[in-house]
Amino acid sequence: MMSLENRRTVRSYTSQKIEDALLHKLLERACHAANTGNMQWYSVVVTTSEAGKKALAPAHFNQPQCTGAAAVVTFCADLNRFSRWCELRQAEPGYDNFQSFIAAAIDTTIAAQAFATEAEAEGLGTCFLGTTTYNAQAIIDALRLPRLVVPITTLTAGYPADPLPDTSERLPLESILHDEAYKDYSSNDIDRFYAEKERLNRRFVEENGKQTLAQVFTDIRYTKAANEAFSEEFLKVLRNQGLL
Amino acid sequence: MMSLENRRTVRSYTSQKIEDALLHKLLERACHAANTGNMQWYSVVVTTSEAGKKALAPAHFNQPQCTGAAAVVTFCADLNRFSRWCELRQAEPGYDNFQSFIAAAIDTTIAAQAFATEAEAEGLGTCFLGTTTYNAQAIIDALRLPRLVVPITTLTAGYPADPLPDTSERLPLESILHDEAYKDYSSNDIDRFYAEKERLNRRFVEENGKQTLAQVFTDIRYTKAANEAFSEEFLKVLRNQGLL
Repeated sequence: MMSLENRRTVRSYTSQKIEDALLHKLLERACHAANTGNMQWYSVVVTTSEAGKKALAPAHFNQPQCTGAAAVVTFCADLNRFSRWCELRQAEPGYDNFQSFIAAAIDTTIAAQAFATEAEAEGLGTCFLGTTTYNAQAIIDALRLPRLVVPITTLTAGYPADPLPDTSERLPLESILHDEAYKDYSSNDIDRFYAEKERLNRRFVEENGKQTLAQVFTDIRYTKAANEAFSEEFLKVLRNQGLL
Repeated sequence: MMSLENRRTVRSYTSQKIEDALLHKLLERACHAANTGNMQWYSVVVTTSEAGKKALAPAHFNQPQCTGAAAVVTFCADLNRFSRWCELRQAEPGYDNFQSFIAAAIDTTIAAQAFATEAEAEGLGTCFLGTTTYNAQAIIDALRLPRLVVPITTLTAGYPADPLPDTSERLPLESILHDEAYKDYSSNDIDRFYAEKERLNRRFVEENGKQTLAQVFTDIRYTKAANEAFSEEFLKVLRNQGLL
């Protein structure tokens, strides 16, 4: 098996389509990943048409991989299908709430990661679009998602255009791993754990005219103001879709 | 590669320990899965001691796999480490909000699923514990999780005790997959998509004295009352941990 250790995100694709049979095989396999109570609280919307990809692009801030990918695969938490089944079977569904949303979001993400792993094993490249929860309402509109359905994450997929890029650096495992209980971080721990990341990314600090790498994140890439605005938007989406 | 199509949840384990070196290799690989902005907003708490597993068991409704597993691995959304780093680098962190929580929860789940895939490839069995978000406060207490850290999912892991069980049935892919836009379900669709599941699980309906399989879910396994109570609890946890 191709180890995850060698995986990398692919954002640039050739114009080669993904055969329907392959796409369906990958999705079929992904559905065999674990899920809560085997209720399969997710749906997958596959967008391959030019018009469909263009309609989704603004929700993903027009990142080029959204229109450049062979397929844009939107993974959605779906409490609608299961609730419909309950209603048609003399059973009162009680899944219009936050805990059901969280369970569905987890299962949806598991399926998405399973799909990514299977896709990469078949030579495809993929990229997760975190913008999915920022602009969820625009995606709901574009994909016509009904009440009780919320987009969680999106994978673009296609055949890699370029030689695979280097893998990204990661924090040392020691910084992620806690033995038996959470061990909070001293300043020394932080210095030690982030030293290599800071060394490898020094050019981003200069390019952005900042003093520290952390400031590139807080002042430019993931600002408090944007995070708070997107928080309000997503809470509104959950209320509109009947899950909060 | 072992296809996900043949995977199954394993709840019963031998007493064989998992070597630290193997566990760390698997976690190291899992950290190479995709994550938002390469910020690695997650932490993993590994519990292998008998006392530690016993302390966690009530939070998981004393499911036997919690104390019977070689390792109980709790995957947590962690905005604390990254925020600490920002504070120590003249950068103002803005990650005490819902959108950051959602991004972290997605990345945490991706890492957990990556770990499960890697563990299964090494001959281990795993089981996701969905109880993690039901009783998050008890887990926070047991693992001493600080502000900005929330448990998202737990994997029990160990060497399978029994021959691997049959894989669970899944809904036909057609029922999960939507082409270009969401196609809502007619009664006929629901009848067709759930027929095989209902046929294969008929005995659960009888054993529970119910009329339909859906009622086994709504009246016994995932009731509206429990879902609503756990929703309130988890929202309270998010507020307490500074993420809502």
